[in-house]
Amino acid sequence: MTTYGLLIFDDAEELDFVGPWEVFTVSSMLRGGVDTALLISEKSAPVRCSKGMRVMPDHAFGAHPSLDVLLVPGGRGAREKEPHNPVVTGWIAETAAQVSWVSSVCTGALLMHAAGPARGRRVATHWSYEDALEALGDVTVVRDARYVVDGNLITSQGVSAGMDSALWLVGRLHGREHARAVRRHIQYEPAPPYLADEPIIG
Amino acid sequence: MTTYGLLIFDDAEELDFVGPWEVFTVSSMLRGGVDTALLISEKSAPVRCSKGMRVMPDHAFGAHPSLDVLLVPGGRGAREKEPHNPVVTGWIAETAAQVSWVSSVCTGALLMHAAGPARGRRVATHWSYEDALEALGDVTVVRDARYVVDGNLITSQGVSAGMDSALWLVGRLHGREHARAVRRHIQYEPAPPYLADEPIIG
Repeated sequence: MTTYGLLIFDDAEELDFVGPWEVFTVSSMLRGGVDTALLISEKSAPVRCSKGMRVMPDHAFGAHPSLDVLLVPGGRGAREKEPHNPVVTGWIAETAAQVSWVSSVCTGALLMHAAGPARGRRVATHWSYEDALEALGDVTVVRDARYVVDGNLITSQGVSAGMDSALWLVGRLHGREHARAVRRHIQYEPAPPYLADEPIIG
Repeated sequence: MTTYGLLIFDDAEELDFVGPWEVFTVSSMLRGGVDTALLISEKSAPVRCSKGMRVMPDHAFGAHPSLDVLLVPGGRGAREKEPHNPVVTGWIAETAAQVSWVSSVCTGALLMHAAGPARGRRVATHWSYEDALEALGDVTVVRDARYVVDGNLITSQGVSAGMDSALWLVGRLHGREHARAVRRHIQYEPAPPYLADEPIIG
């Protein structure tokens, strides 16, 4: 049984946490529903995400089950407000010390730096914030990896990269064959369009 | 100005609509915020998605602005309950007749078939529901395309495929260079793990 806790806050980037959420919950479904994924926020009120989606947390700080995996998304909230919110940084630091795996997606790495877990570690973040993260000091920014695993810390590049790192994690926890089954279930055989510069017909 | 309406309902699959939501809202942001993405549901109460995430709709049926793009996600609700809910199928049929582009993700194609817009068309769906969709009749299931564009109808394979079709659509609406900028912003350079069968080290 694995319990995943995904932190949400105002101006969290939607796909940063919903991508991993989908991976973790499909993983649980394929394992007969034995695992749990929870959205956790400072208060129990709905969160307004970075692009306007309003999501209800499952638990507030201080009222959630113990976690095996902590995930921190990015977004404007992770860069601007929450690094200066000691309730959030304190909860991240305390929770990170208790879980088996700590992860962030996109600019969640900046919040992870403010809270502590990213200090002194090799870390990935959104391409446009690599310089800003490096300027904070006491961190090694890896610029050419989709996600970076350093000890029990897994950090990802921007937004969509959280899906790849979440798949890596469910494979690490429950086996490669299982991770492949999750990938097949969400039919994650990506085919981004417009990768070629070809004539537009018609 | 493009207005995107994303239908949500109980047991909609989370990533089916949040993937396209991220693409549409980042597209708008990069265009100076001129576009709008809205979550629309039958009633104004929070929706409980297929994997348990609770999301607030922005508008209920009958109380939303006119739309340019309609998107219908899949999930258990799209297969079991909503095809038999005339309020939802009626709204989809009526809305599809008014918008410029109609799209579905994953098993949203089954709901699109019940509501009408997928009848007589070439359509993609989740790999495990291709036979079920074909058995409904009056539809051509395309089994080897990530997404299928037939006239103004865009249907996608399972779950994560909605991101690729949404990127295609913002490119069709606002240009390939713009779609590429959206892709860069969400750093959609997918790297699914465990594609190779290699020795596990350490």
